[in-house]
Amino acid sequence: MRTSHPGNIGAAARAMKTMGLHRLYLVNPARFPDPQADAMASGAGDVLASAQVCGSLAEALSGAVLACGTSTRKREIMARWLTPEQAAPELLAEAAAGRETALVFGNETYGLSNAELGQCQALLTIPASAAYSSLNLAAAVQVLSYELRRQALGAAVWPQPVLEAADLLEVERFYADLERTLAALGFLDPASPKRLMPKLRRLFSRTRLAREEINILRGILSSAVAHAPGKID
Amino acid sequence: MRTSHPGNIGAAARAMKTMGLHRLYLVNPARFPDPQADAMASGAGDVLASAQVCGSLAEALSGAVLACGTSTRKREIMARWLTPEQAAPELLAEAAAGRETALVFGNETYGLSNAELGQCQALLTIPASAAYSSLNLAAAVQVLSYELRRQALGAAVWPQPVLEAADLLEVERFYADLERTLAALGFLDPASPKRLMPKLRRLFSRTRLAREEINILRGILSSAVAHAPGKID
Repeated sequence: MRTSHPGNIGAAARAMKTMGLHRLYLVNPARFPDPQADAMASGAGDVLASAQVCGSLAEALSGAVLACGTSTRKREIMARWLTPEQAAPELLAEAAAGRETALVFGNETYGLSNAELGQCQALLTIPASAAYSSLNLAAAVQVLSYELRRQALGAAVWPQPVLEAADLLEVERFYADLERTLAALGFLDPASPKRLMPKLRRLFSRTRLAREEINILRGILSSAVAHAPGKID
Repeated sequence: MRTSHPGNIGAAARAMKTMGLHRLYLVNPARFPDPQADAMASGAGDVLASAQVCGSLAEALSGAVLACGTSTRKREIMARWLTPEQAAPELLAEAAAGRETALVFGNETYGLSNAELGQCQALLTIPASAAYSSLNLAAAVQVLSYELRRQALGAAVWPQPVLEAADLLEVERFYADLERTLAALGFLDPASPKRLMPKLRRLFSRTRLAREEINILRGILSSAVAHAPGKID
């Protein structure tokens, strides 16, 4: 609504696109299109190019069944106060049913008017610090877009890097190499080994050693032995 | 790390402060301090003023026990890949135990180098759109700061607006008023009421009517009756 700085329009478009959102409506922007908007949009120029410029909030909301107005402070005029986390399931459920919803952002300085909030069904507030709660406009768009995406993705498994796990026989050979090498280096006294090997085993078993890593470690041991004062039998 | 645009430093400081974070370390920034940083920081000038400028990542990480490097793409070099959602509990647990942690952000164009990532214990990636995954630097700071704050606040109850609930006796008086008024207006035929009142009850019972609202509604009914063709007995 009535965005003052075109850079914020561009930054908002970028925030949206990174989270998979594309439909931007601009109600009476001060300046648009504008080179600053283009610059801040970076790779989201397509979102700007397809943005709809509207003459009123009602026009922008036409076709939507649910509008959430954003504000840094709670407004008594609103029936419901929601955090982004609380609002997202409702917004996603409407989207899943093929219905359109809107997040409404006010002017940088003045926010949304009571009349504009009156056209929304819920008030959405990012739980910001009481000491300083004023997010930049595009930053607020980023947070809400992120929260929607986070919940839309759900508990999707985030794959971990896959390294070919070492066979435990190889792991034991490594420990044997390690023990002999430490003895050859004079670091381990076979007559009084204390708890050195158990402690080293504890260290390495906190990670599942990969075959490649075992090979690297055994290579290191070989190099060390080559310069060791002792001998390996 | 090596931030190119001072405006991003200011915007990052603002993003942090709105989420209750204050400790900013800048490793070899291209320009700092800078008027653009001040302008973009808005009300977070104190975060900029107390920012530590460091000559190396190692210097910045001194005193921390866990560093998460951020990247838009997964890097094989890292042992663990985490989303912000997955990383936050671990970061918050360290903080709760009085230990220091760090989120590390790379240069706007080049991100973090492999050497820099090698000084981090996990890779943190915001689950962005595959079509365009490049968040603005300060926007990424905003998302991670938000996720930490969201989880730190936990399931804290978000209070709803409190309106003095109407006594159900008042609610029934309203329904009685409504029915008589609709009859006086000729909208309801008492001889053939159909399901009009049950539908109106269903509408109003979806919300818990407040005493003030009941008074307003009954006032409206009185006004309507004053101009109605029929009469109220």
